[in-house]
Amino acid sequence: MSNMEHTRESWVDVLVIGAGPAGVMAANALARNGVKIRIIDQRPDKVAAGQADGIQPRTIEVFQSYGLADRLLKEGNQMHMAAFYNPGPDGGIQLSERAPDVTASSARFPFEITLHQGAIEAIFLDSMRSLNVEVERPVIPSSIEISADQAILNDPEAYAVKTVLKHVDNAAEEQTEVVHSKFVIGADGAHSWVRKSLDIPMEGEQTDYVWGVIDMVPDTDFPDIRKKSAIHSNNGSCMIIPREGDMIRLYIQLDDKNLMTNGRVDKSKIGPLQLLEVARKSFHPFYFGTPEKFDWFTIYIIGQRVASKFSVEDRVFIVGDACHTHSPKAGQGMNASMNDSHNLAWKLTHVLKGYAKPILLKTYEFERRKYAQDLINFDKQFARLFSGKPRTKPDEDGVSHEEFLQAFQTFGGFTSGIGIRYLESVITNTTHQSLASNLTIGQRILPQVFLRAADGRPYEIQDLLPADGRFKLLVFSGDTTQGGPLQNLMAFSTALKPVLSSLVSEEKIFDVFDILVISSATKTTVNHNRIPLFLRSHWSKVLIDDSDVQRKQGGGGYANYGIGEEGALVVIRPDGYVGTVTPLQKVEELEAYFSQFM
Amino acid sequence: MSNMEHTRESWVDVLVIGAGPAGVMAANALARNGVKIRIIDQRPDKVAAGQADGIQPRTIEVFQSYGLADRLLKEGNQMHMAAFYNPGPDGGIQLSERAPDVTASSARFPFEITLHQGAIEAIFLDSMRSLNVEVERPVIPSSIEISADQAILNDPEAYAVKTVLKHVDNAAEEQTEVVHSKFVIGADGAHSWVRKSLDIPMEGEQTDYVWGVIDMVPDTDFPDIRKKSAIHSNNGSCMIIPREGDMIRLYIQLDDKNLMTNGRVDKSKIGPLQLLEVARKSFHPFYFGTPEKFDWFTIYIIGQRVASKFSVEDRVFIVGDACHTHSPKAGQGMNASMNDSHNLAWKLTHVLKGYAKPILLKTYEFERRKYAQDLINFDKQFARLFSGKPRTKPDEDGVSHEEFLQAFQTFGGFTSGIGIRYLESVITNTTHQSLASNLTIGQRILPQVFLRAADGRPYEIQDLLPADGRFKLLVFSGDTTQGGPLQNLMAFSTALKPVLSSLVSEEKIFDVFDILVISSATKTTVNHNRIPLFLRSHWSKVLIDDSDVQRKQGGGGYANYGIGEEGALVVIRPDGYVGTVTPLQKVEELEAYFSQFM
Repeated sequence: MSNMEHTRESWVDVLVIGAGPAGVMAANALARNGVKIRIIDQRPDKVAAGQADGIQPRTIEVFQSYGLADRLLKEGNQMHMAAFYNPGPDGGIQLSERAPDVTASSARFPFEITLHQGAIEAIFLDSMRSLNVEVERPVIPSSIEISADQAILNDPEAYAVKTVLKHVDNAAEEQTEVVHSKFVIGADGAHSWVRKSLDIPMEGEQTDYVWGVIDMVPDTDFPDIRKKSAIHSNNGSCMIIPREGDMIRLYIQLDDKNLMTNGRVDKSKIGPLQLLEVARKSFHPFYFGTPEKFDWFTIYIIGQRVASKFSVEDRVFIVGDACHTHSPKAGQGMNASMNDSHNLAWKLTHVLKGYAKPILLKTYEFERRKYAQDLINFDKQFARLFSGKPRTKPDEDGVSHEEFLQAFQTFGGFTSGIGIRYLESVITNTTHQSLASNLTIGQRILPQVFLRAADGRPYEIQDLLPADGRFKLLVFSGDTTQGGPLQNLMAFSTALKPVLSSLVSEEKIFDVFDILVISSATKTTVNHNRIPLFLRSHWSKVLIDDSDVQRKQGGGGYANYGIGEEGALVVIRPDGYVGTVTPLQKVEELEAYFSQFM
Repeated sequence: MSNMEHTRESWVDVLVIGAGPAGVMAANALARNGVKIRIIDQRPDKVAAGQADGIQPRTIEVFQSYGLADRLLKEGNQMHMAAFYNPGPDGGIQLSERAPDVTASSARFPFEITLHQGAIEAIFLDSMRSLNVEVERPVIPSSIEISADQAILNDPEAYAVKTVLKHVDNAAEEQTEVVHSKFVIGADGAHSWVRKSLDIPMEGEQTDYVWGVIDMVPDTDFPDIRKKSAIHSNNGSCMIIPREGDMIRLYIQLDDKNLMTNGRVDKSKIGPLQLLEVARKSFHPFYFGTPEKFDWFTIYIIGQRVASKFSVEDRVFIVGDACHTHSPKAGQGMNASMNDSHNLAWKLTHVLKGYAKPILLKTYEFERRKYAQDLINFDKQFARLFSGKPRTKPDEDGVSHEEFLQAFQTFGGFTSGIGIRYLESVITNTTHQSLASNLTIGQRILPQVFLRAADGRPYEIQDLLPADGRFKLLVFSGDTTQGGPLQNLMAFSTALKPVLSSLVSEEKIFDVFDILVISSATKTTVNHNRIPLFLRSHWSKVLIDDSDVQRKQGGGGYANYGIGEEGALVVIRPDGYVGTVTPLQKVEELEAYFSQFM
């Protein structure tokens, strides 16, 4: 009577498997770009508490580029400061130092945000809902098959992947569906079914470090309970991560080998009260009461592994924890995962819309696997420092405060996500780096306030470069109130139009490219109407490098970017990273860049 | 068959008549404070286009204090710059100067926002909806009567006002309702039925200045079309107000006496095309095309009048255009109106909840009528300058650019709303002004960034003082890491509690007062747990006067406010204005302040 089977068939451009942070980031980005997608998850509901929770400065910028940072900033806790505790002379811990939590000086949002994973996912789910995309759940994939026909594989328009899904709903029926898609994104976590189905091995190993985690509203006289605090005591290490509301998370080092069963940690062997008991020993002499309840707890052993490849036939891609696992204390997990999807989504969009060649998709693994490996290497060093015994005398073994603090600061560019740099590829060309010497090609564009020429309103440039799937051409023109630069700009405009028309049909130019002119004229002299019409699709597209009328922000952008009065064309990729810089006088170099993949 | 009459009776604390900007501000503020209100309007729908549209810097701060600025900032156009044009040597106009639109240096939002009135009202309507308050419309009041019984008038709990309403809905029935309320707010516009019903005369006169207004998306090569531009030409004056989207508003001086019928302007005698034709003469030599459509247009004559009183028996109050009419070009109308309601709402709340004596209500007329008179005086000068002939040679009659610009800047504190200062009254006591010499008692609290002691997160102090109906006690304690100041703070805390308990019952202290301690300790030394428990109802209530870890904001607050290391207690009224400053050592002075009206 039950388990009546129905099979239906359907077609979609992209099927996203898994609705965790990586999955919803991918689905939302693709849907925003107008790609037909579906997203499924085997969990009946979204996460309610616990799990990953730290959002790094670069990830906040990425949220902002999707128009989603406001809610994150409003709902989340902001960590601005870190505190470091070490053993004091009387055996208990004492404060060694308070320092900025974020040391990357160019971070636009110079803090980390903590917010539980369910709330973060909800931001994307609401955004997706406004685009008429809902997560289908509970839905379990049961098989996946990529076409072996080379003709099909060569045609990005072909539905080359067949995935069989089981819809498991409350009704007694189980429905089977065969989904034909052009691409599949496996965002299904550390135990990824997609990865296993495609026989992609994980490389790397498991560590010996066992940690416990408890979430609670604390009852304590510890002065730095609302800062990110690293506690190195003679009775073990702890880390405090303050959370939204009055909650905190405590990471607690455990050295009990009895917590292991068959090489995996066994959560049944310890509870939150025992974890708190272990933490209390580290916190001595500070008081730490027993909270009314624990909102969540877990124990885990750190595994440091990267998948051997991130895609199969450039048709199925894995993102997020499916590709890499590492320790949570450096707060990288959710960030790495969402940025995988952010990197992949625009590339899939351009191939699906026929703007770019499939070769563009190769850069996903190239860029993100390199990053994942760097992340593991960083994590190894950081986990060793964090889990190591504190050293308080010069001749002892262990980790000194100075060593730990230095590592914390040295790795700041990495842990904040701000320093991530993609290496030379078809989309990253450093030939003319010297024309914008401080704007590192392969890194995200440096924050800088410019004024809109027409109304003098200051704008952070990042806010004019949203993640809308378009390449942004920033035309640094020099001072357009002067005859020379204005004539050069006119010549550039005349030369640019046929180049862009050769890459995409003329009526689609502004679907693929957005053009902004950044003049070094001043707010008192500029006339935006003088800029050639092709370069100002709207009056808001002309900017100037000047301070605002209150002299509080803006100005010095050419210098900050290392651009001279001769100007430059800066290409910003749809994900906000600098793709290349070319001279205004040589439009053919711009053509050469784009024609590698378009 | 039609017009069957039903009469019902109902009771409510406050009846708000009129759902324009003043009405929705009042209704939203009262509802947020938990007061039972109803709001009615005779229009069947909210305003769709045109009408008042400028939001001044102080009003943006007020929106922010209600948690409503985000949407205003997102949807509205921001005017950062002004441009001034005057006759050039060849007869046409030329640019004389570009300058900041807002000159009040302490403005937290140093620009004006333009957004059509319907969108502004929608912000409040949505906020009210979240508080389960909807505007009832179309509903027409037909009579209003204040009890003549002194015993009833003396009891703020008594339903002293009887208003008869007619509900006019689509059904053929017309329903009559008798509403008994404790208070009525008449927010029903320049032709206020409430004002007329209560025989409150308007004082002042009508000018000779006739102006036309057109809203459109312009087609022009005028370089400053996206700035607030004042055009003085030999062919008349114009003002450009850029609006949301691509729209602008044009104010056009008219000198045609033929536009008058029976002393009022007659809109049937001129249309938007003729208005544009007049404007074109001023704009010469710039091109001004005919737009596809005009979104709105009107003509008006400037009346400059103030109601002779703003309340009757302190039971019925009038707010907004019902109290004052003046020219729209200085952009004051909607701002004055909403700030009337902002001033009144907390006072009504405190009387209704039994916290304050009815004498508090007298301060509404005292403060806002004075302001309205100042506004008219300013408006007279500004309208004269704006409507006057331009003077280009020293020996000519008329208004020179320098004279106009100087007036524009001199009046900046007034037009921005930032400089508004309420004079000495039961709620404004300047005795100890010298303890906070730069924090003018009677003005709104100066913006300043402080850090939260517990987590080092920077906060604009205004954001910690929301319009939640509570008085805020800012305890500037000096450096609490030092023994002396800490002991003084403990003594203050011990003395404060019985004082507050004598004003309201002990369990209601934090319903009426919020207490914040602002220590001059640094982020590296402070321990918020040392602050006496009564002064920190939550860990977030302890602040420090230090720069943030990025050294980008914060610090110098004591100096900016003119507060010494001996500290001071600063009382901020629920509307964000400084009520008084008292010495920490003399809690009896604080008691004396509050007991005047509590």
